[in-house]
Amino acid sequence: MYGTFLGIIGRLAEEKGAPYDTFPFLMMKYGKGGVADWATLCGALNGAAAAIYLVSNKPEPIVDELFGWFQLEKLPVYQPKESQLEIVPSVAKSTLCHVSVSKWCKVSKFKAFSKEREERCARLTADVTRKSVELLNQQLGGTFKPIFPTPENVKQCRSCHDRGGTLENTRGKIDCSPCHFNLGTAHKKKI
Amino acid sequence: MYGTFLGIIGRLAEEKGAPYDTFPFLMMKYGKGGVADWATLCGALNGAAAAIYLVSNKPEPIVDELFGWFQLEKLPVYQPKESQLEIVPSVAKSTLCHVSVSKWCKVSKFKAFSKEREERCARLTADVTRKSVELLNQQLGGTFKPIFPTPENVKQCRSCHDRGGTLENTRGKIDCSPCHFNLGTAHKKKI
Repeated sequence: MYGTFLGIIGRLAEEKGAPYDTFPFLMMKYGKGGVADWATLCGALNGAAAAIYLVSNKPEPIVDELFGWFQLEKLPVYQPKESQLEIVPSVAKSTLCHVSVSKWCKVSKFKAFSKEREERCARLTADVTRKSVELLNQQLGGTFKPIFPTPENVKQCRSCHDRGGTLENTRGKIDCSPCHFNLGTAHKKKI
Repeated sequence: MYGTFLGIIGRLAEEKGAPYDTFPFLMMKYGKGGVADWATLCGALNGAAAAIYLVSNKPEPIVDELFGWFQLEKLPVYQPKESQLEIVPSVAKSTLCHVSVSKWCKVSKFKAFSKEREERCARLTADVTRKSVELLNQQLGGTFKPIFPTPENVKQCRSCHDRGGTLENTRGKIDCSPCHFNLGTAHKKKI
């Protein structure tokens, strides 16, 4: 969280000064490990969403696109020039730290508290920062066009369970499948 | 998010002025509905965690206690004096907006976008603000003592899956059971 927020707003503070340089940046460390290591929302996304809401007049479509991209993109992509270490990318299928880390552990065979996982999250933070700035600049230049729509399986779930559905018993835009993984039988028995 | 953060830091800004009154409070609206309506981390908790990290020198135990309390407490408790409306409380079993709202819909029989659900989240925001301030004041006065330890079922999961476990293939402090609800058979088949 601190990384993405500092990468976007800290850079603005360097270039523009006030009011950005009055922000208490260290506070944003609360988002580490999905907020104080609770592994809820990925810290990189939490910080990016905050930064997007601070600088955009129409932030929600940018956050939607960023989160949609994050769920489906193979990450990390960023390779520091000074490093020879290769980090295997993975698809998070979720915006949650817990799910994202577990999927990466499975693909990479590295442990959740390994140095490689730390490096993976650091590079992913760079990727999220870059993507956020690209989207913000596109919006500012009038060229922003979302290309990560709600996945079909999520649309199907939401048609009954979300706003206006016959059940309307929940809310959310996140991919349902990583948690509701037994959907094949979900509607025959209580989940 | 805006509600809890404003309830804690906005009050400090009123009383103390700078530096609290320089904070761009409206930015915190990004946390609505679990961040831009993605229903990830409950906005009340996201804002409270930010505020706790801003003012505490040892914030993580306070966040742990707040999140642990939120998972297990029947909420909301707050009843505005000017309202006759009764809101049925429920146990979230999670720090996630999606899970918390769904559990409340099930208990209350109200829909996820009903006025009653909005009122429920508003009251819950008051409860989280109050609890956060109580915990911060306890810490400041040297009387803070956590009473919401990690639940036994979570300890059991973490003993293999978290830091130092034989698998160490994930991370997190959140209650596992709302998502991994088929744990009875989980270790016999792939989850």
